[in-house]
Amino acid sequence: MPVAEAWAAWTAAARAAGCPSRLPVETVPVAEAVGRVTAAPVWASRSSPAFDSAAMDGIAVTATDTLGASESTPLLLPAGSFEVVDTGDPMPAGRDAVVMREDVHHVRDRDGRTTAAEVRAAVAPYHHVRSIGEDVSATELLLPEGHRLRPVDAAAVAASGGTHVVVRRRPVVAVIPTGDEIRPVGEPLAPGEIPDTNSLMLAAQAREAGCAALVHPVVRDEPALLSAAVREAAGSSDLVIVIAGSSAGRDDYTARVVAEVGELCVHGVAVRPGHPVVLGVVDATPVIGAPGYAVSAALTFEIFAAPLLAALQGAAPTRRPVARARLARKLASTVGSDDWVRVRLGRVGGALVATPLPRGAGVLTSLVRADGLLVVPTGVEGHHPGDEVDVELLRGLDAIERTIVAIGSHDMVLDLAASQLRAVDPMLTLASSNVGSLGGLVALRDGLCHVAGSHLLDPETGSYTTPYVERVLAGEDVAVIRLVHRTQGLLVAPGNPLGLSGVADLVGSGVRYVNRQRGAGTRVLLDTLLAAAGLDPADVSGYGREEHTHLAVAAAVASGRADTGLGIQAAARAFGLDFVPVADEPYDLVARAADVEGVLAPLVALLGEPAFRTAIGALGGYSTSETGLRVR
Amino acid sequence: MPVAEAWAAWTAAARAAGCPSRLPVETVPVAEAVGRVTAAPVWASRSSPAFDSAAMDGIAVTATDTLGASESTPLLLPAGSFEVVDTGDPMPAGRDAVVMREDVHHVRDRDGRTTAAEVRAAVAPYHHVRSIGEDVSATELLLPEGHRLRPVDAAAVAASGGTHVVVRRRPVVAVIPTGDEIRPVGEPLAPGEIPDTNSLMLAAQAREAGCAALVHPVVRDEPALLSAAVREAAGSSDLVIVIAGSSAGRDDYTARVVAEVGELCVHGVAVRPGHPVVLGVVDATPVIGAPGYAVSAALTFEIFAAPLLAALQGAAPTRRPVARARLARKLASTVGSDDWVRVRLGRVGGALVATPLPRGAGVLTSLVRADGLLVVPTGVEGHHPGDEVDVELLRGLDAIERTIVAIGSHDMVLDLAASQLRAVDPMLTLASSNVGSLGGLVALRDGLCHVAGSHLLDPETGSYTTPYVERVLAGEDVAVIRLVHRTQGLLVAPGNPLGLSGVADLVGSGVRYVNRQRGAGTRVLLDTLLAAAGLDPADVSGYGREEHTHLAVAAAVASGRADTGLGIQAAARAFGLDFVPVADEPYDLVARAADVEGVLAPLVALLGEPAFRTAIGALGGYSTSETGLRVR
Repeated sequence: MPVAEAWAAWTAAARAAGCPSRLPVETVPVAEAVGRVTAAPVWASRSSPAFDSAAMDGIAVTATDTLGASESTPLLLPAGSFEVVDTGDPMPAGRDAVVMREDVHHVRDRDGRTTAAEVRAAVAPYHHVRSIGEDVSATELLLPEGHRLRPVDAAAVAASGGTHVVVRRRPVVAVIPTGDEIRPVGEPLAPGEIPDTNSLMLAAQAREAGCAALVHPVVRDEPALLSAAVREAAGSSDLVIVIAGSSAGRDDYTARVVAEVGELCVHGVAVRPGHPVVLGVVDATPVIGAPGYAVSAALTFEIFAAPLLAALQGAAPTRRPVARARLARKLASTVGSDDWVRVRLGRVGGALVATPLPRGAGVLTSLVRADGLLVVPTGVEGHHPGDEVDVELLRGLDAIERTIVAIGSHDMVLDLAASQLRAVDPMLTLASSNVGSLGGLVALRDGLCHVAGSHLLDPETGSYTTPYVERVLAGEDVAVIRLVHRTQGLLVAPGNPLGLSGVADLVGSGVRYVNRQRGAGTRVLLDTLLAAAGLDPADVSGYGREEHTHLAVAAAVASGRADTGLGIQAAARAFGLDFVPVADEPYDLVARAADVEGVLAPLVALLGEPAFRTAIGALGGYSTSETGLRVR
Repeated sequence: MPVAEAWAAWTAAARAAGCPSRLPVETVPVAEAVGRVTAAPVWASRSSPAFDSAAMDGIAVTATDTLGASESTPLLLPAGSFEVVDTGDPMPAGRDAVVMREDVHHVRDRDGRTTAAEVRAAVAPYHHVRSIGEDVSATELLLPEGHRLRPVDAAAVAASGGTHVVVRRRPVVAVIPTGDEIRPVGEPLAPGEIPDTNSLMLAAQAREAGCAALVHPVVRDEPALLSAAVREAAGSSDLVIVIAGSSAGRDDYTARVVAEVGELCVHGVAVRPGHPVVLGVVDATPVIGAPGYAVSAALTFEIFAAPLLAALQGAAPTRRPVARARLARKLASTVGSDDWVRVRLGRVGGALVATPLPRGAGVLTSLVRADGLLVVPTGVEGHHPGDEVDVELLRGLDAIERTIVAIGSHDMVLDLAASQLRAVDPMLTLASSNVGSLGGLVALRDGLCHVAGSHLLDPETGSYTTPYVERVLAGEDVAVIRLVHRTQGLLVAPGNPLGLSGVADLVGSGVRYVNRQRGAGTRVLLDTLLAAAGLDPADVSGYGREEHTHLAVAAAVASGRADTGLGIQAAARAFGLDFVPVADEPYDLVARAADVEGVLAPLVALLGEPAFRTAIGALGGYSTSETGLRVR
């Protein structure tokens, strides 16, 4: 069902079941009203200022008394014809202007008492007088209904005589996690168990939306228990969100329970991620069954919970600013759904460039790392590289403008650099996307990144990176800067059960290898090592099986899907694997020469810092002997 | 002193005095970390998912067993060669793919036990399997230092094994209100006293910036008391803000106290409003002396407190989105200061139009009503009408796009309409600027507003509005819709002490009149009434004294600066004045005909609603007999 249709069906059913369209009102002291939404217009009950007052420090006078006074022809006002006033003081009766302090010389007697004032400027009536009601007049409309109070609003209400504000009650959101395998965050996990991160996230989203959030203990997979929990939550909240673990089977089960104890309105919406959402009403309370995949759960809140909670408060929903960006690569989309694509953004060569992040509903880090959301609506098949698209911004454009966009081979040292750059300058981001070394050079050529990480070995010359740069970026002024030397090796199960010692062991042995994709430096390295040993890749079992990162290779070995793969030591450590070193290689940063002193300057400076080199050393498997060396 | 120079002097002095550049760290449970700023990078300690798992409901199989299976040639897998799995379940040992539920038919024995599975689709290895580390791999960088945690970040930290996060301590801001005339909000006010709205506002601004705020009781104007309060606050907070009442004299006094008990760095900054700001350091704690005018105080927080508090947390300062807008009218600016101009925004005829709001430092409602801030930097004399300017957005562009921009004569009924429109649709805003009837028609002609409120009487024809429309908007397709009939009258002090009964009493009587500006409908009405009575405006004392709104005229009478002025009954009520009716007039809405069914449709619909007419009647001084009538 399309999102708009699902929303209409759900809200209509809620209305029919007696759910309020707006929450009840309550009256709160103005100091506690910030963040709340007005339930009635606020009219000023007092003018501000409430009296004519001095707008400057000086003396209050009758304007006509100062006629003709000037710097060169000062005029003496006798005591009794003026009063000393400070800014904000009420104007004394009969005075209609203020001569500012700088234009007054007080004439004093021997005891220091002012006997007269020498005035060096004439003033017109009402000069330097702040008029009653200058800010707001009693009975004026100060705030309309449906306005979320900010600090300035609360101050203005108080200034115009308000001590309390009539606001909507804060919505209460009940979050019910379900699933036998779900454990509270922080509790130890048995194999197959999952921490209850969705409750934490949804409750925090609800609080950000100005609501109170109640998190129910995890409900085991028993319909009777869930029915009871939903009914109890419906009785004490304005919106119930049931989190269906990560099981689609369990989504059905949430739908069944909602249908049994209330009304099931929608099961399945044309949006990805988030497709299997459940919408219903129980005991005159709207209920959402959120899919268990984290991205789905987060987007379900955005798409269905947030607008409902805004409507209950009578407030405008929060919308993000939108920017136009150029798409870095082809983006396919399911025609039958709204596709919510997470993208990284950066300003490269004058254009804002959007690079899609992994699309999986379970890849929460794609949302963590996203700078924006790109919605490809139902009916659109996708976009071509270079297409202009509208992106909802998750970070400020000013921070995005200062993002160093890295596309290419991945290395942990880039992560380390990202963190150290940010620690020094909170506005600075180094954002890496991993597409392999060759992909990085192509992205650099196409103006999609500032820097490409590369470790491509040229078998003919035996040298790294530069031969490829000359091919892919021919004729361009390109710099190559050495980041590190690192050790590549075979990632093997703990204890190296097959006793592998080098690439020769991969051939004809039945060892299940897992390879990297075409264009990855590590694959080029394997090919070169095999060729040097006179071995045929066709004899390597699993040569055709491709993973796209060191970590994915390590994961395959760790899960027993493969016996070994080539990768860096950090990847072995990530998955508790053993590591058989087979080669040492340089890992370089490739960039346009003009950017080295420009957008990349902070990164280049970092390479020279001893503390950074020490931190690299601590990772293991790296040498910094040539770190920062300009190779080209 | 320029803002940047003041900032540099202040932060350097703070550093020299031993203020920390970053706050100390603390470790908090991940569920409480949302909104806090990381003080160290967060690395994943656990892969997520932590095991290969089923990505769909179905059966886990060995992929090669399914070779050749299809819809038309199903294949039977015997019991023991597959396991039933739900999404998220760990993959059973030896299985490497999942056949989704829809493609499986379970063959059962008489007891309902599955004896075999009929498989209708072949699967490749790792099909529908979610790989260990798909979301995040152990040891990966999850969040850099200096990152403010959002709900998704906290969930990702928990998913990758984090139970606690190392964050900066929340900054503590101490707010010290000063001034003998300042009273806590809600306490009764004696004449000349002012409610302490600045503390309320600054504390709320600090809380919005992620800080704890401590508000000190109001300190009387005694240096010793202020010294003691500042030292005490410096000892228990990370930033002290002293609010200097509204007295510039008192600003000096804050500066003196800061110089005595600590170091005074800056007194006076080239920014308007906010010029008399004080910056210093006391006991290794930064101190701000904020000017007492509300807009100055709010901007001082933005310009000096907010970036300092962000820096102490190691976080990027919050910046607002910026939009380009066309300036509706000439804007003069002081060359020697950064001028912070509050503007209203609206989309008129395709362009985003910015209309400057009142500039006074004490006009807090200008900040309440502002859609954006326009900074005219030092060295720039101002802007011409139609200039393109950058505006920092205080409201979302989506809400601004739905704003009905009204410029012209002001009437309370427009306020009432604004509130009722918002109550129905929280995204809808009716924004009024008051420039008088003729100014409104000119603004409409120039494409600066959607609708102009007008009550211009043509002395020659005796008819209202349309003759002016034909002159100012000649040749355009313009609609005129009657809003109300209303009574104009003389606003007089309570009890009508001078016994005024009509405009004839204004002539030769010594009565001090206060007039409206040229182009105001009320001034045209006075001129017409005088002419009809054969009277000479030159004989009206105060005819040349101009105020720009009904309310300003009423304020002048209420403060005794004038004896009377012509205005509407609502203005009399606002200031507790008496009202002597002298004429009945129609008040019309003028708009481009095309907009009547477009952007103005909700307003036009409102005019037809009985509840709205009843509410107008309750204001007093209005008739709704022709409300909604299309006059032209």
